[in-house]
Amino acid sequence: MDIKNILVAGEYEELFQKQLTNEESQHFRFIPVDEITLEDLSWAEAYIGSKPCPGFNPSNLKWVHSFNAGVNNFLEIDGWKENTLLTRTFCSFGERISEYCLSYVLRDLQFHKYFKEKQSQKEWAPKTPKMVKDLTIVIFGSGEIGQEVAKTFDQFGAKVYGVSQSGKQKDFFKEVTKTTSSGPLLTLADWIISTLPLTKETNKLFDNELFSNFNGAAFINVGRGATVDEKALIEGLNAGKIRYAVLDVLTTEPLPDDSTLWLRDDIIITPHISAVTDLNEAISYFFDTLRKIEKNEKLLNQVDFSKGY
Amino acid sequence: MDIKNILVAGEYEELFQKQLTNEESQHFRFIPVDEITLEDLSWAEAYIGSKPCPGFNPSNLKWVHSFNAGVNNFLEIDGWKENTLLTRTFCSFGERISEYCLSYVLRDLQFHKYFKEKQSQKEWAPKTPKMVKDLTIVIFGSGEIGQEVAKTFDQFGAKVYGVSQSGKQKDFFKEVTKTTSSGPLLTLADWIISTLPLTKETNKLFDNELFSNFNGAAFINVGRGATVDEKALIEGLNAGKIRYAVLDVLTTEPLPDDSTLWLRDDIIITPHISAVTDLNEAISYFFDTLRKIEKNEKLLNQVDFSKGY
Repeated sequence: MDIKNILVAGEYEELFQKQLTNEESQHFRFIPVDEITLEDLSWAEAYIGSKPCPGFNPSNLKWVHSFNAGVNNFLEIDGWKENTLLTRTFCSFGERISEYCLSYVLRDLQFHKYFKEKQSQKEWAPKTPKMVKDLTIVIFGSGEIGQEVAKTFDQFGAKVYGVSQSGKQKDFFKEVTKTTSSGPLLTLADWIISTLPLTKETNKLFDNELFSNFNGAAFINVGRGATVDEKALIEGLNAGKIRYAVLDVLTTEPLPDDSTLWLRDDIIITPHISAVTDLNEAISYFFDTLRKIEKNEKLLNQVDFSKGY
Repeated sequence: MDIKNILVAGEYEELFQKQLTNEESQHFRFIPVDEITLEDLSWAEAYIGSKPCPGFNPSNLKWVHSFNAGVNNFLEIDGWKENTLLTRTFCSFGERISEYCLSYVLRDLQFHKYFKEKQSQKEWAPKTPKMVKDLTIVIFGSGEIGQEVAKTFDQFGAKVYGVSQSGKQKDFFKEVTKTTSSGPLLTLADWIISTLPLTKETNKLFDNELFSNFNGAAFINVGRGATVDEKALIEGLNAGKIRYAVLDVLTTEPLPDDSTLWLRDDIIITPHISAVTDLNEAISYFFDTLRKIEKNEKLLNQVDFSKGY
């Protein structure tokens, strides 16, 4: 594909310049996302950024590249043509999300909260930590990120199962089950981790019915907030089906002040930080993608519109 | 070596019975450690337990086996003869201690404390977690346990260095340095972890001089408490040489009520739980050792009296 004019939504010129070589023949414009004009958009053949600008219209573009792993914010915009190329960023999201998940699992196994309380009471109260190898962990989503999370817990000897739309077997999972038949698996889980993107199929997938299969598992959401019916989550917590929840993503972000989620003892909230894009890494990944497009090489990060990822 | 009479200090009969096979020809006595009599001791050729009983005297014993990895409590007793066999337990101490250390490193990298505070204030305040791969970690002790900790952090891409008496190179360490020349290395470290046993050489090894090389590193002690001069530790914390300390072991255990360590914000105290012996695992390890002794096979867990481990 021949791309000449690339519009970058953000003041990233300096960072891009560092990675530009003499090979690139493209023209770049770097403009803050809120200052992009219709003229910029009609000039551009490619749009690069973490979100659509006001007035964004994919129909005139050959290529859209998101700095994120999830592209639901771009797909929400109408006007996509089948032959428009939409790509997303992988970076070290998998590693980042793995460390996030592992940190909260270990916090629990090592009784950080309990020992902190005991210390504040000057109490020497031994309690044997549990080990990752004794856990059964179910991961929703067996793509790039889910697989990296599976690999991490597998390395520590946990029994890791996957749940995906297709149920296709993947490395690092003892078994991958289809979403529709995941119920029995969920009853066995100590931890259930969702890495799911937001698509038509995953929207409010975690509803009362799905949560009813939880058997006291703790739940981590590092996918997208809207995959969880937050009312059902609260009911699941109140009923003891869900032991507690660690939420890095929420239906509405930032989480509104009046949300009842904030002050629950059984919910840990972090502000969508488990897979922050490292800009230098993302830009390097962008250049890799650009070079592959120029050479018509196979792209591993091309979004399948029918799937949404 | 021929061993007939084995004295087990503790009411472990039921657990031992489960693992006894018809192969063992030994006689066992299971007696709570405080109820062991001189008659029991003179009957016994081998003593098995986690600590010496009152009146313990190694000079009449052929074999002493400790349920712990550290044997300083046995070595403190006089009367050892050179040909007495002293063995210790390995179990999954390395894995347990690795998960302990990793849990506190990740807690820090993922800003658990910060996000908890923000949540309690209903504040959505993103901050990008750091990654293990960006850390430089120095581990004191390159034995069984130190090496397992090194392996764990190496798997996540950290730069792991070792410090040991001999400076002998070992797998999973970029380099192992002698204790005496470790100063320059310590200035580079983000985390310094001690897995050291208590010996003549390691007693108060972490003193003002050693801590003066710390350059804002966080410190974890999962070895033995008395390897740290606690006054020097406090001074190092106050001077900012040590960012904070995670102490699973202390000079006096349980830590006395009036210790100033309890209520410091920059010290995390856990009650010697990072390498708790799983009894079933320890007993199985004991039987392995017993069988090796009967067959005169090489023992990996034999204590070298001159080293103390």
